[in-house]
Amino acid sequence: MSATAEIITIGDEILYGQTLDTNSHWISGELDQIDIKVIRKTTVPDLEDQILSAFEEAEKRADIILITGGLGPTNDDLTKPTLAKYFSVELEMNQAALAEITERYERAGWELNELNRGQAIQPIGSTKITNDLGTAPGIWLERNNTIFISMPGVPFEMKGMMEKEILPKLKSRFVKGKIYHKIIRTGGIPESKLAEKLQDWEGNLPSHIKLAYLPTLAQVKLRLTATGSDMVQLENDVEEQISLCMPLIEKYVYATGNIELEERVGQLLREQNKTIACAESCTGGYLSHLITSVPGSSDYFQGSYVAYSYDIKEKALQVDHEILETLGAVSEEVVIQMAENIRKVFDTTIGVSLSGIAGPGGGTEDKPVGTVWIAYSDGEKTEAKKFVFAKDRKLNIQLSAMVALNMVRSNLMRIS
Amino acid sequence: MSATAEIITIGDEILYGQTLDTNSHWISGELDQIDIKVIRKTTVPDLEDQILSAFEEAEKRADIILITGGLGPTNDDLTKPTLAKYFSVELEMNQAALAEITERYERAGWELNELNRGQAIQPIGSTKITNDLGTAPGIWLERNNTIFISMPGVPFEMKGMMEKEILPKLKSRFVKGKIYHKIIRTGGIPESKLAEKLQDWEGNLPSHIKLAYLPTLAQVKLRLTATGSDMVQLENDVEEQISLCMPLIEKYVYATGNIELEERVGQLLREQNKTIACAESCTGGYLSHLITSVPGSSDYFQGSYVAYSYDIKEKALQVDHEILETLGAVSEEVVIQMAENIRKVFDTTIGVSLSGIAGPGGGTEDKPVGTVWIAYSDGEKTEAKKFVFAKDRKLNIQLSAMVALNMVRSNLMRIS
Repeated sequence: MSATAEIITIGDEILYGQTLDTNSHWISGELDQIDIKVIRKTTVPDLEDQILSAFEEAEKRADIILITGGLGPTNDDLTKPTLAKYFSVELEMNQAALAEITERYERAGWELNELNRGQAIQPIGSTKITNDLGTAPGIWLERNNTIFISMPGVPFEMKGMMEKEILPKLKSRFVKGKIYHKIIRTGGIPESKLAEKLQDWEGNLPSHIKLAYLPTLAQVKLRLTATGSDMVQLENDVEEQISLCMPLIEKYVYATGNIELEERVGQLLREQNKTIACAESCTGGYLSHLITSVPGSSDYFQGSYVAYSYDIKEKALQVDHEILETLGAVSEEVVIQMAENIRKVFDTTIGVSLSGIAGPGGGTEDKPVGTVWIAYSDGEKTEAKKFVFAKDRKLNIQLSAMVALNMVRSNLMRIS
Repeated sequence: MSATAEIITIGDEILYGQTLDTNSHWISGELDQIDIKVIRKTTVPDLEDQILSAFEEAEKRADIILITGGLGPTNDDLTKPTLAKYFSVELEMNQAALAEITERYERAGWELNELNRGQAIQPIGSTKITNDLGTAPGIWLERNNTIFISMPGVPFEMKGMMEKEILPKLKSRFVKGKIYHKIIRTGGIPESKLAEKLQDWEGNLPSHIKLAYLPTLAQVKLRLTATGSDMVQLENDVEEQISLCMPLIEKYVYATGNIELEERVGQLLREQNKTIACAESCTGGYLSHLITSVPGSSDYFQGSYVAYSYDIKEKALQVDHEILETLGAVSEEVVIQMAENIRKVFDTTIGVSLSGIAGPGGGTEDKPVGTVWIAYSDGEKTEAKKFVFAKDRKLNIQLSAMVALNMVRSNLMRIS
């Protein structure tokens, strides 16, 4: 039997529709990886009696209760006193938590006030959870085999705590049988087409191996989960299945395991001792942001020009004035010149460029919103492709960047 | 007293972290506008007993129970039989629903099969809710002054039903009192400091006005919520309170209402007929991405150089070789040259630049990870500031960009 968990999110702002709760979604996914079953999610307002009743109901059902929200320094934060009341204990200064908060403030050169000190106050009997990315520590409290874990609502603080301290603790305590996951990461093929190609293989999977399709932006991840008692055996079983499905989808697979597309591109560039520069128009810097979100990317990323105006496309990227005027910035010829010239400006192995209409304005009958040209150039070859993505600006920016990254990836893997 | 609502989302895929529930967020926002108070949101798995217990708990607390998910044509959809069981009634063919489904299929030229006809089956005593955008009609069921409303999980079908039929019905039945929200948006001050400045004012708020602190990255939003019977009075009451607190925090306020910092900066640039360009190092394009995520940003954003290498800082941004070699790229002198020179390259009113150590590598004793220099230049003045943010790369990138935006904003508002 898997351990069970409930997630309680506290906050009027979520119930009033002002903040989208992405925390419980992320927590669910992480717990799923270690075979802890989330059996309910609840959002309650900043009201003591509502929080208490949620605690009570959850304690009856679940082994682990994860709480987010309501740990900030201000008066409207109720979680801590309510937890203390629910456990019938007083609040006290947690010295370990206070030492951490003090150190953090000193490091940042801020002054510690009473509100900040107050963040180290916790219910008696609780253990502090270190918050490396913020000032409010988390709380770990147990009774009768039920664990209450309280975390701040700020997503990156909550994630930092979960990854560093909470998930490892839960894993060592609850994961009895062995579980082995492996993710096959694909780009450039929609979920339905992938499922078609894998239909027969999926039908023949042994019963202890499960397959999940996890579609994200311009990518589909295939997660294989094997459960059993012998880890070496599980790994072998999964690898065997991967070797069977790989020939069916090889050209779409950019990696297996825990690595994002931008990291894989970085890895390939580093292995092949190549460098890259970008000329971005419609993506406005987002492709460069993705590439540089990877630690150590300065080894292969030289820089980018974000050329929003015609003027800069001509001046900094030497795009022909004539071509810009006659064909427009969103055209094959322009992205080819951008990709070839950014290579020269930055003296890199690879140049990649994008020009399109992100929307909501700027669309025409010929070039509707979502039309994007992307080019790749490496000195030996230059290729440009046209895409028509979506009607939404943010989505168009994100899809364009991911597709450009995948174009670089497939060229580096020489399978395009 | 406002009417109360609960939202119940049914679906394993949400509990396992595969699908982000955006439905309940949207529903919350819509109900909030008509002063129906969402007092709880619950997500339960596709299991009859779990759905029944969620119905039971919700019926005790709320006037209106909105259910999404589990109305599709396939076998694993449990909502309808479970609703019938909960109300102790049989299912029957709803003739009005069948007529609509039949009409819809005929219009589309599809053939109606048994699965499709089955979608018109509803619990006895329920009223169908028309689904203009899909085939599964919704269900409206009442007893003892509690309303159960069941909708499909597909977001656009759910939204269509809510907008056309459900919200108008709820509004005419429940809306007695009025509710008025206003958000004050601040940057450049942490929540605890803001709370200190507002302590006395907050303590003197009239009882029908509530204050909530909503902290996000490098920003804190203050939400004032007034409830009463006269909308004009509520607006006046809130504006009066805003005029009282404003002098205490004015230099940190970038806007009131529904507008993000990057939009506000865009608005100020457009109003003042100014243009901007960025020279980014450690943020790797993220600041440009934020600026260009705003529709119409091409009106004031000319472009950026993402200069990761020393070489490009010298070549494209004319940073002194000597200064780079002696003081390093993360220094006041370098960001000042970057900001001043990017203005000239792009011929813009404003140049903004960033150089820092995002981490995890690259930190030294003098310049630990998180050290970031940011400069602003507008021809009349150039200012540079040093920050020490966090240990996390992503966070350092995001915080640097937000703080740079806020620096531009406060200069545009002439209050820095």
